[in-house]
Amino acid sequence: MLRIDGRPVPRLFVEAGLEAGHAVPLADAQHHYLARVMRLKQGDAVALFNGRDGEWLAHLDGGGAVARRCLRDQGLEPDIWLVFAPMKKDRLRFLVEKATELGVSALVPAMTEHTSAPAPRIAKLRDWAIEAAEQCGRLSVPDCSAPQAMAAILETWDEARCLILCDETGGGKPAMAVFARGAQAPAALLVGPEGGFSGGERDLIGQVPVSVAVGLGPRILRAETAAVAALAYWQAAQGDARLNPAVARDIKDP
Amino acid sequence: MLRIDGRPVPRLFVEAGLEAGHAVPLADAQHHYLARVMRLKQGDAVALFNGRDGEWLAHLDGGGAVARRCLRDQGLEPDIWLVFAPMKKDRLRFLVEKATELGVSALVPAMTEHTSAPAPRIAKLRDWAIEAAEQCGRLSVPDCSAPQAMAAILETWDEARCLILCDETGGGKPAMAVFARGAQAPAALLVGPEGGFSGGERDLIGQVPVSVAVGLGPRILRAETAAVAALAYWQAAQGDARLNPAVARDIKDP
Repeated sequence: MLRIDGRPVPRLFVEAGLEAGHAVPLADAQHHYLARVMRLKQGDAVALFNGRDGEWLAHLDGGGAVARRCLRDQGLEPDIWLVFAPMKKDRLRFLVEKATELGVSALVPAMTEHTSAPAPRIAKLRDWAIEAAEQCGRLSVPDCSAPQAMAAILETWDEARCLILCDETGGGKPAMAVFARGAQAPAALLVGPEGGFSGGERDLIGQVPVSVAVGLGPRILRAETAAVAALAYWQAAQGDARLNPAVARDIKDP
Repeated sequence: MLRIDGRPVPRLFVEAGLEAGHAVPLADAQHHYLARVMRLKQGDAVALFNGRDGEWLAHLDGGGAVARRCLRDQGLEPDIWLVFAPMKKDRLRFLVEKATELGVSALVPAMTEHTSAPAPRIAKLRDWAIEAAEQCGRLSVPDCSAPQAMAAILETWDEARCLILCDETGGGKPAMAVFARGAQAPAALLVGPEGGFSGGERDLIGQVPVSVAVGLGPRILRAETAAVAALAYWQAAQGDARLNPAVARDIKDP
């Protein structure tokens, strides 16, 4: 949790550019949260990020805020997508929240032949991802794409991005052994539905030249657990889990 | 999912011993599930495990089942505990389910000074753990201990078990770097409440000679996310995530 002069300070994602002295409009929901829930007043401090300009200290001013100074530069983040078959609401929300906390760069819902859950609303995925990004200190929000048919995603796959199949049939080598072999970035982790991929979908995956199958250990994981575990393994071997941990920050204002 | 002659077969945890030809009583809830939900009839096949005798093929017989033959030997599992500050119900259930899927050997709820959630009922934790163990193909159910005060747990800590503090203040080295240094087994992962540990609790942790602080990467994880990520990292470096994956099984009967 970010603190300024010892007080916890809300972190908010905004669309507007962040530059010293510039006014930043806040959404009604954000304004209501700051005023009613957090009980902040005019001139109080908040932290803002937009996925482009880093993290900024800002002060509430009218219905918005004025950016004062940059607290953290944007920097690069791991380029790791999660292509997943949507599950029912609670588990889907969990997957979006946890994948965001674990640093996923894009959430790509894929409607497979064995997917029983309805196609998720992209706005809902994005709301959950923003909330998790604000809470975990990320400087970005993962891209959320509209649900597409699995076959369509595979048929147009960009071969510059390694496709890592989390193989629920046990066909793959242990994920850590594969990830340790060298860089699979940019990459995408592919997790199927509880019912598994169809034969046709498995054929299409096999036809992607940059696809590799990995296993996630000796137990059979639920789809959302597989997604979170695969992301943790990838971050551990290839991504930013090897970086020093987040440090609790207390910033002076001004 | 275990299949016998191509049909998905329920896996059930039982308390009784499993031996060829022996009758195994089933709980009313199990019997109801098999008869009403799975629509199984007398003589139909189920798979049973009790955490001691491996996995057995059994046939329904009266109100119980008769064990026929051993499908998998028990074998050893990683000895990795999770000591955690309970969170509210949905996130707690998620933690128990995911930790069980990821092979935790014991769930140890610790009531910390900053824990706001109520003490969980041990029977509820165990029900969730059993359900997850049945679903993920485990041959065991994690031990679930009654909630105790964090201080009491630390003051009586067995020094034969490494205590791995998931340090939310950023004090620790990256978990994978620490785990790669060598065996920390038997071990326990310690995850505090959202509010963090109190100063007194941190002092007690520091006084445990076998304690080591680790960091879980550059983002600030929710407590249940930290627990799942730390367990995944430990399994990846020290545990059974390096083993070959579970293979979808189809067994002939007889």
